[in-house]
Amino acid sequence: MSTKTSEVDLLIIGAGPAGLMAAAWASRCGLNTRIIDEKDSRIRTGQADGLHCRTLEIMDSFGTPSIAADILGEACVIKEIASWASCEEHIERSETIRSGEEDLPGSRYPQVSLSQGSVEQAFLNFLERDDNSSRVERNLSPAKLHVDEASVEDNDAYPVEVHLRELGKDETAGSLEYTAQEPIKEIIRAKFVLGTDGAHSWTRKALGLEMEGDRTNKHFGVMDFIPRSNFPDIRISCAIHSSAGSIMTLPREKGLVRFYVQLAETSDLGDNFDRSKITPDDIINTSRKIMQPYTLDYSHCDWFSVYTVGQRLAKTFSHHNRVFLAGDAVHTHSPTMGAGMNVSMQDSYNLVWKIATAIRTGNREILQTYNTERMATAKELIEKDRAMSEFSCQGPSADSKKYKDFREGFRDFVSGVSVTYGPNMLVSSAGKIDEDGNEKMTNGDTGSGEIKHDKPTRRKDSQQSLPQIYSDPKLATGTTLGQRLPSYHVTNHFTAEDDHIHRAMKSDGRWRILLFPGDLANPPRFRSIRDLGAKLEATSSFINRCTPSDQSIDSVIEILTIHTSNRNSFNALDLPDIFHPWNDKLGHDYWKIFAKNNEVGDDIYKSFGIDEEKGCLVVCRPDQHVGYIGSLEDLETVGQYLERILLPKR
Amino acid sequence: MSTKTSEVDLLIIGAGPAGLMAAAWASRCGLNTRIIDEKDSRIRTGQADGLHCRTLEIMDSFGTPSIAADILGEACVIKEIASWASCEEHIERSETIRSGEEDLPGSRYPQVSLSQGSVEQAFLNFLERDDNSSRVERNLSPAKLHVDEASVEDNDAYPVEVHLRELGKDETAGSLEYTAQEPIKEIIRAKFVLGTDGAHSWTRKALGLEMEGDRTNKHFGVMDFIPRSNFPDIRISCAIHSSAGSIMTLPREKGLVRFYVQLAETSDLGDNFDRSKITPDDIINTSRKIMQPYTLDYSHCDWFSVYTVGQRLAKTFSHHNRVFLAGDAVHTHSPTMGAGMNVSMQDSYNLVWKIATAIRTGNREILQTYNTERMATAKELIEKDRAMSEFSCQGPSADSKKYKDFREGFRDFVSGVSVTYGPNMLVSSAGKIDEDGNEKMTNGDTGSGEIKHDKPTRRKDSQQSLPQIYSDPKLATGTTLGQRLPSYHVTNHFTAEDDHIHRAMKSDGRWRILLFPGDLANPPRFRSIRDLGAKLEATSSFINRCTPSDQSIDSVIEILTIHTSNRNSFNALDLPDIFHPWNDKLGHDYWKIFAKNNEVGDDIYKSFGIDEEKGCLVVCRPDQHVGYIGSLEDLETVGQYLERILLPKR
Ligand SMILES: Cc1cc2nc3c(=O)[nH]c(=O)nc-3n(C[C@H](O)[C@H](O)[C@H](O)COP(=O)(O)OP(=O)(O)OC[C@H]3O[C@@H](n4cnc5c(N)ncnc54)[C@H](O)[C@@H]3O)c2cc1C
Ligand SMILES: Cc1cc2nc3c(=O)[nH]c(=O)nc-3n(C[C@H](O)[C@H](O)[C@H](O)COP(=O)(O)OP(=O)(O)OC[C@H]3O[C@@H](n4cnc5c(N)ncnc54)[C@H](O)[C@@H]3O)c2cc1C
Repeated sequence: MSTKTSEVDLLIIGAGPAGLMAAAWASRCGLNTRIIDEKDSRIRTGQADGLHCRTLEIMDSFGTPSIAADILGEACVIKEIASWASCEEHIERSETIRSGEEDLPGSRYPQVSLSQGSVEQAFLNFLERDDNSSRVERNLSPAKLHVDEASVEDNDAYPVEVHLRELGKDETAGSLEYTAQEPIKEIIRAKFVLGTDGAHSWTRKALGLEMEGDRTNKHFGVMDFIPRSNFPDIRISCAIHSSAGSIMTLPREKGLVRFYVQLAETSDLGDNFDRSKITPDDIINTSRKIMQPYTLDYSHCDWFSVYTVGQRLAKTFSHHNRVFLAGDAVHTHSPTMGAGMNVSMQDSYNLVWKIATAIRTGNREILQTYNTERMATAKELIEKDRAMSEFSCQGPSADSKKYKDFREGFRDFVSGVSVTYGPNMLVSSAGKIDEDGNEKMTNGDTGSGEIKHDKPTRRKDSQQSLPQIYSDPKLATGTTLGQRLPSYHVTNHFTAEDDHIHRAMKSDGRWRILLFPGDLANPPRFRSIRDLGAKLEATSSFINRCTPSDQSIDSVIEILTIHTSNRNSFNALDLPDIFHPWNDKLGHDYWKIFAKNNEVGDDIYKSFGIDEEKGCLVVCRPDQHVGYIGSLEDLETVGQYLERILLPKR
Repeated sequence: MSTKTSEVDLLIIGAGPAGLMAAAWASRCGLNTRIIDEKDSRIRTGQADGLHCRTLEIMDSFGTPSIAADILGEACVIKEIASWASCEEHIERSETIRSGEEDLPGSRYPQVSLSQGSVEQAFLNFLERDDNSSRVERNLSPAKLHVDEASVEDNDAYPVEVHLRELGKDETAGSLEYTAQEPIKEIIRAKFVLGTDGAHSWTRKALGLEMEGDRTNKHFGVMDFIPRSNFPDIRISCAIHSSAGSIMTLPREKGLVRFYVQLAETSDLGDNFDRSKITPDDIINTSRKIMQPYTLDYSHCDWFSVYTVGQRLAKTFSHHNRVFLAGDAVHTHSPTMGAGMNVSMQDSYNLVWKIATAIRTGNREILQTYNTERMATAKELIEKDRAMSEFSCQGPSADSKKYKDFREGFRDFVSGVSVTYGPNMLVSSAGKIDEDGNEKMTNGDTGSGEIKHDKPTRRKDSQQSLPQIYSDPKLATGTTLGQRLPSYHVTNHFTAEDDHIHRAMKSDGRWRILLFPGDLANPPRFRSIRDLGAKLEATSSFINRCTPSDQSIDSVIEILTIHTSNRNSFNALDLPDIFHPWNDKLGHDYWKIFAKNNEVGDDIYKSFGIDEEKGCLVVCRPDQHVGYIGSLEDLETVGQYLERILLPKR
């Protein structure tokens, strides 16, 4: 009997947060996908529970069926974070910080908390309800993985072969050296494989990759429980430092609270602390001492665990750009910052659209950017995690760091909004690159100094082969090349609805050119934007060249226009069709032209640092990261930039 | 073979908007319910499509699974309404009005539009996903309805017998005189029956009730279509008046637009206009003439219909307070105002919790209020509808009524927020009632004048048997007895979340006492509210007397507290348990104490007209209508008021 063999674009191994994010994204990108997991159900209790602003933005960007609505309907919103420190034998509140939009301008979500199981369930609901999605196939594990190196560069090939075996109840994948006692269930020939199989990743081991890094001597207990306490801040997040130790708290859904409690600091590095002896009562007793004079008890312990702080990272996240690794499979660290699940999901969000583009265009070079972009992020994550561990263990001394100041340094990173990718074929350069790979400004008022203010240092990918394309970042100083576009309010020109610009930037695989033409009620301005539209919709335009002829003009690159005029002062339906393409079934697309919105109190031109007279255009990748910033006059450069990525190779 | 017989608390006949609302509400009230419909599926296209603010509030109040989220995810939001009038052979925009919160303070929803089928689907999704709900049983019609008059007053009886028959494909219920050719499928013995079977209601006819009212001579076409037009306001709602006639437009989901187009005004009253000859092209041709100089065409007609304006009303909405009628079954009118579906759903929303209370307490008197409360609303609806029909047919003359001014007169009613129920056993009186049944103020600064400002006239139910209970409406002048409580922002004391007070007033059958104690950081104030809590949770308190002993203290009457203090200035966990009841599985209920919120820009004390020094308490019925307003000192009157309604008769 011959074993069943199937071909897929993408095989995802592991249906944790990173794998599920990949599966949802793959459906939106039209990939033929399979996703397997060794376990017979999603996780039930415990593990990760923090969701940050950027993750919620991504979830919302998938549209209906709404992952974000499922999550937000159930999650607990963290609106405030308080610091408590001991002061003569009892703790006192020293400060309270607001979280959310007040704290993080340019984003519309606060931090929320929800058990990993419920987060996974929201994705499972999406896969269940979405017509193009594949469902998770359970009790399956890879038994063999082979990459045919001869065909890795062939765009039509399926160079990765994965043998699947079925697991018995409660059996897990186990060792690599699986010698088929039972027959292999199925052989999958995949164009691409993504290993999101967690910290003990089978896939990573099959590629022969080790994790590098170490454990520290800091031991923590983590517990989800129903508290009975008169501590007034029990339903907000707290950092508590007393002479008896430290606690970080997080309110959770269904009346739960999570406590991270410092249990011990051992003298030697390593594992000489007996974690197996710790009970929930130990964690509560230690907490009670720290929280004097407040009472603390619990009526139900939902989950608990004891861990030793440590950080590990894999050497590479990809193999021949055919097998990729994401999430805990390539980076682990302590959970206190609540970043793990978020960064893991953001890994696969970075990857999947690139696979779809590579398959469609034959352009395999863009796949390399996954490794460089996400490896840099993982390194930053590990640095921040070290700092966070230090902070949470500090005593309540007079000169101890204030939470508020400490938070400044990692808030933007943990929220996910400051993650910035260096210049590469997907991210144009802000200025000349020096020999060390660092950017210098090229032209402009300030001369050719190094990039200043809070823009992160960006290093050019060494693998870059084509000459770099240059942006003019001074045209939109409130945005950052390589970073996700911030989001502010705009008003839909036709429907008068106020919403964040992000709501118009759905995750559907499309690139977007955001046009900022200023005041269209001004006739010369109106005429010039009308002419620009005519150029963009001409047969020879880069948009038409990058778009398959049987698809609508906005299927690969979408134009969004944000003007500054009074909406009643000109007729936007007199602009060329490319600004509101026609479709026989749906009519005109009225969801592409916006007016800046002054009423809600934010001004997107000001926030983006765009001069209303000059205007500009900003190109966003399908993951909303800014790839290019240029003037409205220079269509040639933007065309060059996009054709490099999107023009089919054949 | 004997016919299957079943017993139910409530049988709902007809699963249109009114019936589905009843089914969802019945599940929340814990009623054992069946719902049948003669058709084999929900409606597919056309009919009603306007959803107003109050309806969305009600939908949201059912919580998860969320009907409101389903609706809002798909619906089209009406943010602006424009008036266009002809001026020298072509139309011009004369004004634009914003809809939503700006326009209607105290409510948080704008007007939205969505096809009736999708609205029904949102309810069907709810019934599908909600564990306590019954599903719609289709292809079933009543064949006989009999009320056993001898047992209508017996609380344990099932006095209504309904015979059900199964319908063949495409067969409808048809005549009353159904003489069983096929066997009866099932006999249902019901405590209560609700007929929501539409304009041709079988149930109404079975009770021998006629509709009263007439048709006019005004004929309209209504059409849902994908427009191709350069009319700039095609995606907002418009009232267009030109010498060629009138159009009312409404943007809709999925690129659709609805047009109500004036087609003819015949000279005789009645039906001498041949509606069957009208085609979609006729409707578009007439519209095109009215909309000169703008172009208009369509690529797809989703639904169209031709109607003659008319208004009809049934004499009563109930029979022995055992069989009730709601929705189109008892009132029909023209569709232009978009009120039909809303008022129909609000009918059954008014009723179902009363049935649940009557079953639990044996107090049947409250059922009488359904008829008085909703009949008065239906009469007002019909008056407004007459005015609306006049308005939509007026020509574009110089002194023609402006839409904005006209709208003032019916906006609050159509949105549903101004619907006000007169004094009865559920709504205390604002002052002395004179011989004609009109209220007079009793005491207070202004003497005993008639109630002034925009408070609607309220007439006491003549059926009222017990002496009226008096409120002190001057303690909360921004609320109106008998009207749904307006909603403003508050901040959860414990979680710091900002949200509308309505979000804390879920439709779960509970009564709510809203306490407004002012500043609790003031120690005497804190002590007095602590003492008040102790009284409320005493074994002899009216709350304990009204609550079954095996249920939690907040299961019948819930206390919500809204203070004016800085949240960090006192420890709310030091208040008695009744303010945050304990539950072993969920811990304390931290969702009952709020601070007034000044940050979002509204001040609930000011908006409700409550003096921070005096404070007050406001009692809301399970449908959020204000039943009683009194001082914090006088627990006796509020106890008397609630015991009358909620104390079990046995
Ligand atoms: C005990 C524990 C406690 C944690 N606590 C916290 C915390 O408090 N806060 C926090 O932020 N993070 C915490 N984390 C980390 C957090 O759970 C991860 O960062 C996050 O889940 C990473 O997602 P992932 O999808 O990469 O991996 P995972 O969530 O580990 O998912 C991997 C998936 O792959 C499947 N799988 C594994 N091997 C195979 C195989 N061979 N074949 C098929 N399927 C396979 C697994 O069944 C699983 O579904 C904790 C992790 C653990 C294990
Ligand atoms: C052609 C048409 C056009 C309309 N256009 C508009 C409009 O443009 N705008 C607007 O606001 N309103 C419009 N309406 C009115 C609007 O649809 C109603 O106000 C609204 O649907 C009332 O809801 P309801 O639940 O009371 O009744 P319905 O929606 O009529 O629901 C009645 C339900 O009962 C079922 N039923 C009927 N008889 C029986 C029986 N014997 N046994 C079992 N089940 C039965 C039916 O199948 C149906 O599902 C229109 C109505 C019609 C008929």
